[in-house]
Amino acid sequence: MSQPSFQDFYPENVALCYGCGRLNEHGLHIQSYWDGEESVCTFYPKPYHTAIPGYVYGGLIASLIDCHSTGTAAAAAYRAEGREMDTLPAKRFVTASLHVDYVRPTPIEGPLALRSRVKDIKGRKIVVSTTLSVHSVVCARGEVVAVQLPDDWVPAL
Amino acid sequence: MSQPSFQDFYPENVALCYGCGRLNEHGLHIQSYWDGEESVCTFYPKPYHTAIPGYVYGGLIASLIDCHSTGTAAAAAYRAEGREMDTLPAKRFVTASLHVDYVRPTPIEGPLALRSRVKDIKGRKIVVSTTLSVHSVVCARGEVVAVQLPDDWVPAL
Repeated sequence: MSQPSFQDFYPENVALCYGCGRLNEHGLHIQSYWDGEESVCTFYPKPYHTAIPGYVYGGLIASLIDCHSTGTAAAAAYRAEGREMDTLPAKRFVTASLHVDYVRPTPIEGPLALRSRVKDIKGRKIVVSTTLSVHSVVCARGEVVAVQLPDDWVPAL
Repeated sequence: MSQPSFQDFYPENVALCYGCGRLNEHGLHIQSYWDGEESVCTFYPKPYHTAIPGYVYGGLIASLIDCHSTGTAAAAAYRAEGREMDTLPAKRFVTASLHVDYVRPTPIEGPLALRSRVKDIKGRKIVVSTTLSVHSVVCARGEVVAVQLPDDWVPAL
């Protein structure tokens, strides 16, 4: 997609995440976008992201759901305030809990299509539900409880 | 530790997992052992396994809990039958569901100490509970429902 992703707006000091940080040179670099009321992310696994041969490693699936959900939570928090993601103060969410149901083995050829919906916004806590599909067949379902970092919590670089 | 880990006993055709396969050259190579009734695993994150700077990426934590739990489930299934892990038929478990509560940020210096207990064995389904600690401070708790692969399910290499 040509428009910037949620993760493109993360301030530099929180853009080093292995899953979604654009500045982590070893990372997965996942990118998330709005598609109406839902958020979407497409990911192409590497051949070594395998579990049982031919299928995607469950830890990768958990990682994708995790980062796509915290990104969605951040985007939803901006949207709830009617703000663009490039405005300050920056909002960044971390994961309080993660649940994944592995519905069926996920073919490693992919592409893995994640689609999420904000289930609940309550103060600084946002619940995000996700499906992960390959060619429209749901292979995993996830739910993340994301919590907004305090505004004055600026990590050292 | 000098004794072989649970993962050292995995047959070659299921030893390619990114998280725990000894034959995956890009993988995490986690190794699990019995410590009495509990299973243990120690992992040293790489500097790039970061989330917010200074802290471990939640997807890595989920991955470690996932693979250590399925390994523990396999070891427990052998033990329940009074069999050694190098005997056939091989038992291999996959993850049906994964839940992680991130209790506090996990310092990336580590080492990450995982400690698991088999909570329930019911037929081919084993539930494993895990804590992940750094210097004895619990940073995350996990629960995995692991399901044994059918004996005749031999993946292609």
